[in-house]
Amino acid sequence: MADSVACAEAIAAFGREHGEVFEVWIEVDVDGHRSGIAPEDDLLIAVGKVLQAGGMHVGGVLAHAGSSYEYDTHEALVRVAEQERSGCVRAADRLRREDVPCEVVSIGSTPTSLAAEHLEGVTEVRAGVYVMFDLVMHNVGVNGMSDIALSVLTTVIGHQEEKGWAIVDAGWMAMSRDRGTQRQKRDFGYGLVCSENGEVRGDYVMSGANQEHGIISRTGEPDREIVRRFPIGTRLRILPNHACATGAQHPVYQALAGDGTVETWPRFYGW
Amino acid sequence: MADSVACAEAIAAFGREHGEVFEVWIEVDVDGHRSGIAPEDDLLIAVGKVLQAGGMHVGGVLAHAGSSYEYDTHEALVRVAEQERSGCVRAADRLRREDVPCEVVSIGSTPTSLAAEHLEGVTEVRAGVYVMFDLVMHNVGVNGMSDIALSVLTTVIGHQEEKGWAIVDAGWMAMSRDRGTQRQKRDFGYGLVCSENGEVRGDYVMSGANQEHGIISRTGEPDREIVRRFPIGTRLRILPNHACATGAQHPVYQALAGDGTVETWPRFYGW
Repeated sequence: MADSVACAEAIAAFGREHGEVFEVWIEVDVDGHRSGIAPEDDLLIAVGKVLQAGGMHVGGVLAHAGSSYEYDTHEALVRVAEQERSGCVRAADRLRREDVPCEVVSIGSTPTSLAAEHLEGVTEVRAGVYVMFDLVMHNVGVNGMSDIALSVLTTVIGHQEEKGWAIVDAGWMAMSRDRGTQRQKRDFGYGLVCSENGEVRGDYVMSGANQEHGIISRTGEPDREIVRRFPIGTRLRILPNHACATGAQHPVYQALAGDGTVETWPRFYGW
Repeated sequence: MADSVACAEAIAAFGREHGEVFEVWIEVDVDGHRSGIAPEDDLLIAVGKVLQAGGMHVGGVLAHAGSSYEYDTHEALVRVAEQERSGCVRAADRLRREDVPCEVVSIGSTPTSLAAEHLEGVTEVRAGVYVMFDLVMHNVGVNGMSDIALSVLTTVIGHQEEKGWAIVDAGWMAMSRDRGTQRQKRDFGYGLVCSENGEVRGDYVMSGANQEHGIISRTGEPDREIVRRFPIGTRLRILPNHACATGAQHPVYQALAGDGTVETWPRFYGW
């Protein structure tokens, strides 16, 4: 990030030119996963000072411990959560000690937000998939299967009996192309099959997906009884690998209340 | 498809019950790739007869030679195209010989629609990605790089200089999770990098993608000059692996006319 200082200078120059005081947050790299400035890096202070001297307002620091997705034990998640918390708090403390105000200390990631033993010094937790959960998070050890709140409702439209396939009218355009469980401890294909009322149906997954078609089959030995098990017209619910990606394939959520009523919730595009 | 006859019976019964004559098309399996009834299968006639006897209208047959995506030579595509055409026409002929009317003979798939040497007996060609083209189709040998009409415009927002990375503000939520080139002759990661005006920038690809961030790097040896090559603020266009999947991540297309004017085209959700 050798150009972070140049970038901060450019932001400040642009703000001054337009008579604006921008509120700027500095991203902290707590795990070497993607981007940001490491908590102990001198660059952190240099960027904060340049923004402040340029008349901008340093509003806070933020981090996202993306590496937490790579673990699957509670102990490891507790460790990453503490690394995220302490790194982000440390960055804020270093800025404050140099008289750069830094009000917000914001951390994220669903696994760490649930595993953190305490949040001392943190002022904001941003967690996303947290509200829905999914199969990736299940593999990480974050949620139970019955905690997953998002599913895609689909209908069986055909079979390839000799292959043990049921064909459904939802493919990757409905599920997304996210194969997040592919390298995890259990690969769920494009999703795990439940009955219409949400009960997991053993080892059936969406093992393959074309744009508008999904292939339902049993993990391991093909099910020669699939035509009788899931006849044409059977409605199935598919739990997603990654709720964020699956949600983004649809314009609205159909939200089911406990009493069975359905509300339509619009969702926004983009990021 | 042992239950195809039962399904045809159910359609006919439902239609009669509601006083409707449904127009039904029969899917033909021309390459054993996914679903449909093989052209020579007795089931084809059985299904057609059941629909007709039940008072429904057999409107046509349709096929999609999905296996064409697996090839990358013109000769192979010509062969698959002819297999798709002849199989679908054969199915229609067999139905007609049994006095089951079958007006439409519909085939699909972008590679075969462009490779077909003739379309005798075909009444409709359904080709999708055909209108945009993409890197998957480039690898199949269907289109040149400059034929790709869809790209995602993004901005460089940071770097990891020692890794040779530029970070951009478009991740898989902008590109889709489609990694269709992964097992093809050239793997383009999440897309190929072009300058803002559409020129391919050598061997730079979106080598990794998080939800809202993309990682741009050079294939092979890391580019230690990446900060100077693509400074913060640089706008890049990313060509997609799969135009259908990338388009579906966005609510509208920004269509650029030859004279530089931009029109906004809405796109529909779903399938």
